[in-house]
Amino acid sequence: MAHEVYYEDINVGDEMPELVKGPLQKLQHVMYAGASGDFNPLHTDDDFAKAVGLDGVIAHGMLIMGFVGQAITQWIPRKYLKKFGVRFAGMTKPGNTITVKGNVVDKLVEGSENIIRCEVLAQDENGDIKVTGHFEAALPLKG
Amino acid sequence: MAHEVYYEDINVGDEMPELVKGPLQKLQHVMYAGASGDFNPLHTDDDFAKAVGLDGVIAHGMLIMGFVGQAITQWIPRKYLKKFGVRFAGMTKPGNTITVKGNVVDKLVEGSENIIRCEVLAQDENGDIKVTGHFEAALPLKG
Repeated sequence: MAHEVYYEDINVGDEMPELVKGPLQKLQHVMYAGASGDFNPLHTDDDFAKAVGLDGVIAHGMLIMGFVGQAITQWIPRKYLKKFGVRFAGMTKPGNTITVKGNVVDKLVEGSENIIRCEVLAQDENGDIKVTGHFEAALPLKG
Repeated sequence: MAHEVYYEDINVGDEMPELVKGPLQKLQHVMYAGASGDFNPLHTDDDFAKAVGLDGVIAHGMLIMGFVGQAITQWIPRKYLKKFGVRFAGMTKPGNTITVKGNVVDKLVEGSENIIRCEVLAQDENGDIKVTGHFEAALPLKG
């Protein structure tokens, strides 16, 4: 869980604490399906996935996006998070271990808000990129 | 699950099929915690949530973002989805029923890609907005 983070303590170039998830298991897709209500069989039925041209099931893209969100909110308290966007770059398969990284690319004052902008990335154990993204948070001042 | 969608069949102003999720239950937070591995007690422990100034547990923001993702991929096959971004606007509580809506705001050809841009929104039964966002998809042509 995130502790307090102040605008003055964050600098451009700072790295977000890494989050490592995995190795992922098919069962996690089933759990995610149950939690989210997204029962697309592409994520839970290998025969179905093969019938549409894949090697087997792939993870819900939103699960991987969720890992990125978890990495962010382990560092920056959720209440300060304003925007979060991703680009989907690749499919995630059972057995992949996902590492989420990020760094601060900009700091700026907008009106009464003290904003940090960060880039984030989720990649597997081979360095294949699954998701790239960015987020923006408005942080409190110490003073 | 999404069926095939062609660029020629989508027009600016078209509405995304609505997705309704809920009423949400605390148990869904527990399930999401187990599926995602995000065990921040803010989502599962009312006493903890009250200790930090809330009325009780709130949903994982990524679960609500996931509902928006599910609404999108029920309409547009996941493989065509390029970008997805949100702005977090409000907290979601047990008992809320979330409706996800969206509409097409732009169509354009970029290089060899036929792109649609859409705006999306998740709101509760009182019209309180939880998440606003946008996505971009590259669609196939019929011809």
